[in-house]
This record gives sequence, structure tokens and C-alpha cells, in this order.
Amino acid sequence: MARYKLTIEYDGTPYHGWQRQDGLPSVQGTVETAFEQFTRHATVIFGAGRTDTGVHALGQVAHVDLRESWSLDKIREAANGILKLNGQPVAIISVKTVADDFDARFSAKKRHYRYRIVNRRANLTVDLNRAWHVRKPLDVKAMNTAAKLLLGKHDFTTFRSTDCQAKSPLRTLDQLDVKQGEGDEIEIICSARGFLHNQVRSLVGSLKLVGEGKWSKADLQAALEAKDRIACGPVAPACGLYLVKVDY
Amino acid sequence: MARYKLTIEYDGTPYHGWQRQDGLPSVQGTVETAFEQFTRHATVIFGAGRTDTGVHALGQVAHVDLRESWSLDKIREAANGILKLNGQPVAIISVKTVADDFDARFSAKKRHYRYRIVNRRANLTVDLNRAWHVRKPLDVKAMNTAAKLLLGKHDFTTFRSTDCQAKSPLRTLDQLDVKQGEGDEIEIICSARGFLHNQVRSLVGSLKLVGEGKWSKADLQAALEAKDRIACGPVAPACGLYLVKVDY
Repeated sequence: MARYKLTIEYDGTPYHGWQRQDGLPSVQGTVETAFEQFTRHATVIFGAGRTDTGVHALGQVAHVDLRESWSLDKIREAANGILKLNGQPVAIISVKTVADDFDARFSAKKRHYRYRIVNRRANLTVDLNRAWHVRKPLDVKAMNTAAKLLLGKHDFTTFRSTDCQAKSPLRTLDQLDVKQGEGDEIEIICSARGFLHNQVRSLVGSLKLVGEGKWSKADLQAALEAKDRIACGPVAPACGLYLVKVDY
Repeated sequence: MARYKLTIEYDGTPYHGWQRQDGLPSVQGTVETAFEQFTRHATVIFGAGRTDTGVHALGQVAHVDLRESWSLDKIREAANGILKLNGQPVAIISVKTVADDFDARFSAKKRHYRYRIVNRRANLTVDLNRAWHVRKPLDVKAMNTAAKLLLGKHDFTTFRSTDCQAKSPLRTLDQLDVKQGEGDEIEIICSARGFLHNQVRSLVGSLKLVGEGKWSKADLQAALEAKDRIACGPVAPACGLYLVKVDY
């Protein structure tokens, strides 16, 4: 028995999120099936975090225990070969051996997300399902300035899903940058040790109201202080969100 | 009657290239259909250049003559509305009024292409159909150094399709840069007044051989000097190529 750390990239579009669910395609289920096909054993994969339906990952992390020991290259090549054969937009970027007490979820020190907005009138083409299409011009500077008041430790009740199962609504936001990207693109970078369910998309949705001029910085502050889900702006769509990296 | 300049973005994946063809989906045909639906007149669109099956554009340019005069915003919104309704990954980024002697193809002063390679073992997911997946590690510096010998005016017979209909194989390459991009990405930037059929993909395919160490810089020089299609490396796939911009 040996434990392995997997770094996983996926296009979230065809999946009902990370978590395995009966009768619905999931990233976890897809990776487990691929592992079962080459190890010939039932396999369970434990992810660093659950991504929602349509959310992408460039660096999701998971751990897996395998009965027999395999070379790292063999695991990666076998799993990717099967994933490709199965027509799944999921890839194992790297495989590493880890200690038995490594846990993809509980050992994580920081999670990094990126949110992509394409800000223009015209429809999306190459970025369809890869970014949020916002037609109204956004004030990136105003969004970035307002974002800073969300940094640090806060009660994020306003910015979490009513389905969120975390015991505490307290989280510490380490980074929240809103930057003009290439062309019409706006990029939002967000890092923390842990996030509440729908937290990044809730923050982005509210920052978009600031960018449109519908909310002032003070309105965002008031929404945070309300500690009430009802005070949140409309949640940003899943297709713009990428889990970029998990630090251990 | 008024002439308009259109800047067009598209995902080339579902199209048999730019040029209208009977019974096959094309970008030109798709845009013409959209214009016909809102102008209620048969419409012909003239593009700056024909892109092949699967090639993308961020800034293709075309001109069109319309019988009635329309506001620029109305043209863009009407065309995009219909393109979206028709489920086509094509968007009109901008519309401008131009003089009657403006010709998208013949007035063009420079064309800018970008070619994207993702250089890693693992399958592509979010970049599927958006980049060339090359598994063998490439030496970006060697590629960039070798690329420079292709700059300037040359007989590019080696690097054009046998189907190329241009009278002369002489072209002047203004820019050919090979750069390490974000993560595993390699970006090739290529600019010239005009290109031969398949020229960029032929150059990229041969530069890839240099990156793999299969060809030296001298081999690339010899291929150019051979002036023989047979001396070209395997042509790079269409999915990595983007027509970025056309200067007038």
C-alpha cells in the first residue's frame, strides 16, 4: 500500500462538479474509473476541495492509496491514456509519492483561484465556457480598490451558499486582486487557506456590481457586515472559475 | 450603398475554414447568413485572408457593402444576436465605416498570427482544440534562434502547400518569435504583409523539429534553401493557429 499525490487539470463543463454522484458524470468518478481500469482494484480518490458543476481546475490536488506500488510515470501515463480513450477532458499533470498521513484536503495550507471575465459587447467564441461574459463596461480600478476591504479574517456569511456545510463562517482571505488582463479580459486572483461553498463566485458577483457602478465600496462593506446571504450580489457563473493551485 | 469594415473573432473548430463552400459550414457563410437575416438582402463578405479548417481568429477582418445604411452599433448587435441564436462561435467585435475603395484583402498592410503549443506529457483539457499538444520537451531558445534565419525576404517554396495558388513564392517575414509562455505554453508570433497557403503551420512544424533536437539551425537553413516542399517538416495542426490582427 502506498499513497500518491495527484495534480489534476480539467475542463469542468461536462461534469456535475468534482464530487462523485450516482448516475451523474463527476471529475472524481471519472478519475476513479480510470484508476480502476488500470489497477483492477476499486479505487477512491480524495480531493483538496469540491469544485461545483462547470468549474475548471488547472491544479486540483487529490490523494489516492494503491495496493500495489507503481512507478510514478506509469501511473500518470496509464491514467491519462485511459482518460483520453474515454474522451474525458481530465488530465493527471503529475504524480508524487507522499507519506501516509498526507491528506489532500486537510494538509492543504493555501488554495489559489482565478476568475476570468471577458468584458465586451460581442459574444464569446474561443472563450465560451471558459470565462464570464459581461457586456457592461466594468471599472477594474474600483473593483480592485473595493476588493481590499475583504482581505483578512471576516465572517463571510453573506458570501457563502445557503448549502454551505462549514461549521464556521469565518475565513481569512490572503489575496484578492482584480487586474486588467490581455485585451478585454479581467482577471481576479483569490487565495486563502480555505474557502466557504460558493465564496469566490459570491465575491466576484458582488465585485461586478462595484465595477458596474451599482455598488460603492461602502455598499460592499455593508454587504460584508450584514452577515446575511440576502445581502450578496448575484453569484458569478461557474464557467469563469479555475482552481489554479493548492499549497502544502 | 455603404461599405463597412468588420473585425471578426471565431473558434475555427466546427468550420471548414473561412471560405464559403457548398454544403459545408464555413465562417464566411455563417456571417453572410447572419447579415442576410437582418438586412433581408443577399450579402457577400470579403475576408482579409482565408483561414483553413480548424484555424481560429481573434481579429479576422472583412468588408461588406450594405444597400441601406445602418448605425454601426445596430449592425454589430443584430449580427451578434443572430450568430448567438444560431449557436455559432463567431462574433463581430467591431464595425466601422470605410471608404468605397477599402478592400479587406488588398488594402491589408500586415497580418499577425499567433501559434500556441502546450508542451507537456499530460493530455490537454481546457486547451483542447485551442493549442498543439507536443509531448516531447522542446528547446525554446534553439527554436527562437533558428527562427531568425527565416526573417526577411525569401523564396518560401519549402514552406507552402502544394495547393498554394500564389503566383510568387517570395514573401517577406517581419517577425518570427518563439517565446516561453505561462506554464507549459510556448507561443510563436509571426507577422508579414502576406503569407503563402499553410506557411505559418509549415514554419511551426519545422521549428518543432529544431526544438526536439532533430534538426539543427543549419538543417532549417538547408530546408529553406532547398526551395522544395519535400524538405519541409510535418505541418503543424490547425488548432494551434490564431489570426490575431490585420493592419491597414
